[in-house]
This record gives sequence, C-alpha cells and structure tokens, in this order.
Amino acid sequence: MGITVTSQSPVYLQLSQVLEDMIRNKSLRPGDRMPSVRQFGRQQGVSIPTALNAYANLEARGWIEARPKSGFFVKSREADLVREPWNVSSASKVTDFANIDPLHSIMADHSNPKFVPLGAALPSASLLPGVKLARIMGSIARRHPSAGLEYDIAPGHEGLRRELARRSLDWGCRLKSDDFIITHGGTEAVSLALRILCEPGDTVIVESPTYFGFASMLRELRLKALPVPVDSVTGLDLDALKKALQKNRISACLLIPNFHNPVGCLMPDDRKRELVTLLASRGIPIIEDDIYGDLQHHGSRPRCLKAFDPDGSVLLCSTFSKVLAPGYRVGYIAPGRWYSRLLKLKESTTLCNTTLPTLAVAEFVKHGGFDRHLRTLRHAFLEQVDRMRAAIVETFPEEIGLSKPQGNFLLWCELPLNVDSMELFKRARAAGISVAPGPLFSPDGSYKNFIRLNCGHPWSPVIERSIGILGHLVKQLASAKSR
Amino acid sequence: MGITVTSQSPVYLQLSQVLEDMIRNKSLRPGDRMPSVRQFGRQQGVSIPTALNAYANLEARGWIEARPKSGFFVKSREADLVREPWNVSSASKVTDFANIDPLHSIMADHSNPKFVPLGAALPSASLLPGVKLARIMGSIARRHPSAGLEYDIAPGHEGLRRELARRSLDWGCRLKSDDFIITHGGTEAVSLALRILCEPGDTVIVESPTYFGFASMLRELRLKALPVPVDSVTGLDLDALKKALQKNRISACLLIPNFHNPVGCLMPDDRKRELVTLLASRGIPIIEDDIYGDLQHHGSRPRCLKAFDPDGSVLLCSTFSKVLAPGYRVGYIAPGRWYSRLLKLKESTTLCNTTLPTLAVAEFVKHGGFDRHLRTLRHAFLEQVDRMRAAIVETFPEEIGLSKPQGNFLLWCELPLNVDSMELFKRARAAGISVAPGPLFSPDGSYKNFIRLNCGHPWSPVIERSIGILGHLVKQLASAKSR
Repeated sequence: MGITVTSQSPVYLQLSQVLEDMIRNKSLRPGDRMPSVRQFGRQQGVSIPTALNAYANLEARGWIEARPKSGFFVKSREADLVREPWNVSSASKVTDFANIDPLHSIMADHSNPKFVPLGAALPSASLLPGVKLARIMGSIARRHPSAGLEYDIAPGHEGLRRELARRSLDWGCRLKSDDFIITHGGTEAVSLALRILCEPGDTVIVESPTYFGFASMLRELRLKALPVPVDSVTGLDLDALKKALQKNRISACLLIPNFHNPVGCLMPDDRKRELVTLLASRGIPIIEDDIYGDLQHHGSRPRCLKAFDPDGSVLLCSTFSKVLAPGYRVGYIAPGRWYSRLLKLKESTTLCNTTLPTLAVAEFVKHGGFDRHLRTLRHAFLEQVDRMRAAIVETFPEEIGLSKPQGNFLLWCELPLNVDSMELFKRARAAGISVAPGPLFSPDGSYKNFIRLNCGHPWSPVIERSIGILGHLVKQLASAKSR
Repeated sequence: MGITVTSQSPVYLQLSQVLEDMIRNKSLRPGDRMPSVRQFGRQQGVSIPTALNAYANLEARGWIEARPKSGFFVKSREADLVREPWNVSSASKVTDFANIDPLHSIMADHSNPKFVPLGAALPSASLLPGVKLARIMGSIARRHPSAGLEYDIAPGHEGLRRELARRSLDWGCRLKSDDFIITHGGTEAVSLALRILCEPGDTVIVESPTYFGFASMLRELRLKALPVPVDSVTGLDLDALKKALQKNRISACLLIPNFHNPVGCLMPDDRKRELVTLLASRGIPIIEDDIYGDLQHHGSRPRCLKAFDPDGSVLLCSTFSKVLAPGYRVGYIAPGRWYSRLLKLKESTTLCNTTLPTLAVAEFVKHGGFDRHLRTLRHAFLEQVDRMRAAIVETFPEEIGLSKPQGNFLLWCELPLNVDSMELFKRARAAGISVAPGPLFSPDGSYKNFIRLNCGHPWSPVIERSIGILGHLVKQLASAKSR
C-alpha cells in the first residue's frame, strides 16, 4: 500500500492516521477488505502486535470493522447512519393482486447480458459451484447410465431427503427423511401448498411487502391476499396480524420469516413461537418460505417457524436455487399433516423431478463441501450488500431509507416520495439496468416509491457505475416531479 | 445355422423347408430376426438369388415377414390370429375416477431392479442415449459454466422451440417457435392445459380406456370424467362422442389419437378431421396428448389433431420422456389461443424448466442424430412388441384378446372374464413382476379382466420367463374362479 511514516508519534498511531487519510480520500473505499494483520505488518516492516494496534485504533474510531473469519473491512460510515425504510403499507384490506407484469421482464432480463442484473433475486453464477455440479452429473451418468434416465418418483431421491433431515437439526427441527417431498424448485413447493390449503376466492395472509412471485401465484389461483405489515427489524407485525384475524376468514398464511424478501429482516425466536402458537390455536396453516434461511450475515443459522410447530400445521418450503443452482430446480417441502395429499398433487402436477440435477445436488450436499460453500457465500453476500449500501448512500438523494438486511443479498430502498419507481424501472431498463419496482411487492400496488436491488453479484465497476446512474435517475425524477 | 440339404428338389425349396422345420420346432422363434439374404447365401454356399427365393417362399407361406429396412423376421402365426380385445366400457356416464392407487407402486417398482418392468410405460435405458445426453450437459457446463445455473425463463429455450417448430411439419402442422411453451414433462403440459380450461366440477371427455395418469390428474383437479369408447383400430368412437356431447356440458376433451395408451390404435386422418371440426364447431377445446406420435411401427409419422385445427382450439402436448430421457423432464405444449394464460400459469406453477437437461435435449435433437435414434427405437419397439405378443399367445389361455398396436411399446390384453386383474397385479408383484391392471385405465373401474404390458425393454430370458409366469397365474385365476 506504500505508506510512508513521517512523524515521531507511536508507530501504530502514525500507521492508523495514514490509513484514515486513505479512507477519507477514498484510496480505500467502504467495503474494501484490509490486508491481513500479518500481511500489513510485513508490508510496513513492523511487528504483528504493532500492526494489530494500528487496526484496533482504526476500529475503535469507527473506520474499519472486524468480521468473523474474514478479517477487517473499511466501514461505510454514512451507510450506518441512513435510516431504515418505512413500512408504507396502508391499512390491511382484502384485495386482488393488481395485474402488473414487469415480473416476466425482470426474470428474462436477468439472463440477458445486456442488462446489469440488479432486478431478479439471484446470485452470480461465479459464486456457485456450476462446474462441480455438472461434473457430478457426468460422473453419475458414466457410472450408472440408466440412473439419470429413470423417473425420480415422488417423494423424490431418498439420499437428498436424508441430508435434509440431517440439516433440519440446524433449523431447530427434527424432521425425518419421510417428512420431505422434493419439488421442482421453491415455486412448485409453495404453489402446491397453496393449492392443497385453499379454494378459489379464499383469503391468504401475506406480508407487506412480500416476494412478487407470490403475487402471480395468488392471482393465478384466484386467491385474495390480505397484506400484514412487516417491521424492518422484527418481521411480521403480530398486533396487525391479530386484528386481521379478528375480521377475516383466513385459509393460510404465506410468510418469509428468515431474511425476508425484500426487507431482509429476521423474526426473533420468541416472536416466531408466538406467531406459530397463535395460528395453530386458530387452525390456520402456515406456508413458510425459508429460501434465504442459510444466508445469515452474522451469528448462527436461524430457526424455522417449523421448529415451533406443535401439530404439523407449518408447511416448510425451500430450495437450493439461491445457494447452489437456480437452473437445477431442486426444491423441497415438509408439508406436515398434508403430506399424503401433497404427494398426490405433486404427482399429478409434474409427476416427478429431474433426476440427474437432483442426484447432483444430493451428492454435493453430502460430500461436496456444502457447508464450506455456504460460509464463502455468506461472506460474499455480506460484502456485496455493504458495498451496494455504501454506493447508494453516496449517490442517491439524502432522504432515502435503506434496509440493513440481517441475511440474504437484497436491498429494499425507499426513494423520495415523489419518485415513481415504475417510471424509474423503465428509465433504468432503457439504460441497461434491471431493477425491481416496489409496487410488484404488494397486493395493492403500494410501495410506489420503493425499489429492490439484487446484491447477488460481486462488486464491480459496472455495478458501481449502474448505482451512479440509478442515483442520477432518482434525482432527476425527484426534481422533475417537484417542479 | 447349420442346415444340411438332403433331398433333390430345387435348392431354394429345400432350404425353405428346413427353415420351416426350424420354426416349427422352435429353433427359430417368432420375432427372431432372420440372417440377411446375403449372409444366409454365404452360410449355405448358395447364390443370393437362391437365398432370396428361399425367403420369398417362406414369406409366401406365412412363416416369415419382411420389415422395411430391417430384413426378415419369423412371424408369429398364432399371434396374428388372436383377436383384438373388446371394448368393454359400459354406457358412457359421468363419474369420478375411483380412488385406486397401484399407480404409485407401478411407477416406483419400475426403477426397482427387484421387479421385471412390465408395468410402467417406459423404454429401457439401454435403448436411450443417456451417456450422450449427459456428455452434452457436461460439455455445455464446461464451455458456459453459468448457462446451466441460470433460469430458463418461460416459454423456455428458444433453440428447442425452433427445433419443435421445424419438426412440426412432420406432424402436418406449421407451428412457429413462439407457439410452444417448454414444460416439466408431458404431465405438466396436460395438467396446465386442464387447469386453464376447466373449473372444479366440470366434465372432461376422456377415452375409455385411457392413460391412468389422467385419472389422478382429473381426480386432483376435481373434474368429472366422461369416458367415450376407443375402437381398437380407428380410435375414439365418433358416434358415441356425438351422443355424449348431446347430453352433457363438456369443458374439454383429453385424447391420445396417435398410438393410444393402452390400446395402441391410430386414428385415421379423415376421422381426425371430423373430430376436430365437430368439437371446434361446438367451441370445445381438445387437449391432444401426442407422446407416442413419433413411434409408428410402419409407414410415416402420423399427423396430429393439431394439423386440422381451424382456430387454435387444440392444445398439443408432448414430451421427450418416451423417446429420449424420462428423467430429464422435457415436455412441451402448443396451447393455441390459450398461449398467454398458459404461460402465466406455468410461471406460477414451476417458474421455469431445468436448464441443462433442456439444453442437452435441444442439442441432441438438433445435432445428435435424433431421427436416426428414432428409427432404431421404432424397430426395437416393433420387435419387442412382436416377441411379447408371440410369447403371450403361447402361454396365456386361448380365449384372450390382445391388441396389435400400430405404434408405441404397449400391449393391452383382455383376460378371461373371471380373471380379476387387481388380484393378478398382486400375485405378479409377489412374483417380482410389475404389470398395470385394467381398472386403472378407466374412470369407472371397468376393464377388471384387462392388463397392460410394457414392451419397452429388449426381449430377454427374464422377460420370457415372466410372461410364462403371468400365463400360469392367469390360468390359475381363471380356473380357481370357475370352480
């Protein structure tokens, strides 16, 4: 890094002062990883304790932060100060999902190299073991040529279900392999669960905001959505839920308690317990979408609602799409007491799963270093989220709100009130940038001035430039409207 | 073959007499392929014309038959004489599918090496290009590591849709790539079509008998089935259909016009035209299941109902499961005027297809010798069907009826009236043989004395022995009941 020590104060202080200057003048930028203490000491020709003192001093003054097992990172001081987005959802009322469809375009743009992929919630292929998984498929096909050709009859590959059972201990559950049904991705899991639990015209409680894929699912199944607000820290608002339950006949709740999409919040265990107990006492089943559960930024893997399930009324849905291979379509459901009905509906909907991709995921989870891969992925996502937050704070108008997710790789951003995010979506798309506009995330078209940004890709000059362009567009829209 | 010529009659006649003796004493068995004329001449030290004369004489007397591009085969004379099964379906009436479920066991037993696989309608992996497809997946993954990880957004891989459009000319259609949506196998295609066209409680016309997977589909979607008999040669009985239409409100017809499962019949073009015109004039959509369409035993590839579709009211469904790779789950639908609704329902049901298997099938269809593969497969299936027919005629009671399929690899067998095929199913299963009992193939549990047999596997001593055991069990049941 080429630091030259000039004054006569203690060496560690001199070093820390020079580093501070580099951060101030942006030679080191928020989110940058600092050299390891050992490396820094060697570079500067000082002892490890001296190097460590310099870092400790910088950390104490809020310039850098230590992350477990990753080392030191330049802190985004402004990003720490930005407020969380408000939850603007209006009073809960039953409504149809409005028929907005940038959804298809967001999904399609994601695989189109012409667009910077900040729209769909997908990790970069560069972070996923694609070559290794394909190699496993090849090896299975060579060793057992008929294996991949045969039907993987529902409930699906037993080896994978056994791994899921083993892993369920980490989720606070003690599920058996026979509790699981393998599905064609998380979408099929949730869609089957809704079809088992609801009739057309029924009402389903969803979070507000919520994953936009749920919107099209509910619309296609002709179900009503009753949105209940999500708190940016503690998740679903239980008081609002209680009120909603008093006034409406509810067939199911469809929730994302762990690292909510788009908000990023994590429901604490005591609230999870309260939620499950409340709904079980009223006989209302919960469809739990846990697809981000393995992607905590700090601490340990959170428990699932299913961990607090007294009587099999939680249908736990998840997928390997966000952590291993979106295109492999390997998801699963532990549908509690709806097991046999769900198995039959699965068979009559898609018969069975794609065999080789399922076998490859099973093999990777069992022997491929899945846990090591998850650790790497978590660190990458945390770093990417931090970089994106810092860049947004730097280039967007001051009055924005910005989520500070506790896991996953998504940011939920509240723009100035007069910015129409559908218009921003269009202008950004014209500039080759894909984003997800807020109204997609609510049944009643709320969140008009919100966008969700995907941080699934490693930070790059292209993404940095895109955030700059987005900031510019936001400012343009904010000032045009206020004129 | 070691034939010694002894008499002084013309050499070709002597040769033909010796061959006849070998067929009579079963040194040559029905279905056996004869040596090529050239090979036979060389073996016997006679000229090619003499060898050809010997074969022609045998053929004229009905002992062998020529098959285009395959050579001569020992004919099954008894099998030719066995009658077609009756269609025993009772008067058409609306009914729920009875909740019989050997279905799951038939599917599961198929991949279990403990069972001889005569139950599920699946070709042997040894006839399918499993290793080649897996190699294509590996090669794609190496060249474009991210390709297989990304979502293959609906309507699905354009290259595959282009190939389908090209091939649709063979089906008598002129479909464009934009007419197709790739699905998770044929099951998803048909299931989506039913969900688009029908409401719970609606009535769907199906053939009697029909594919048992349709039974569970209709049951799960709470649709009523109105069975219309299938003629063993000309397919759906159009007079019965007209009567059924007069008396009932019908939401859709779900039909297998080409090489029907289980009957094997092929609806002639003029009847196809009449059928489509009749239903279009009444505004009743047709879901056409064409999954066996490429598997004719003789002649050219038959047309689809879709070829006669005046106004986009035929939803053509098919899959590569029966000809390339069941476990790859690559199917498709050309849903006519329901295209956009079907696309949305597909997205909200399974989001998108499994990417690498879809790409591999596309590549194989385009560059992998798919047509050559189909030719080999057709010959194999024809031979296997013939061998199975001959063996059945030899070991089953005389009074049976046996289908003579015009394509595919299935046999539909009518047993003596007092044989309960569910009981046969159980006893066969106990003997390690999987078969599909008749009542599965009808909404009202008809066909109690029928079974369907899968001829998808190359003829083998194990299969031959199994047919012997089945014949024994059938005789046992027939005599036990009549006592």
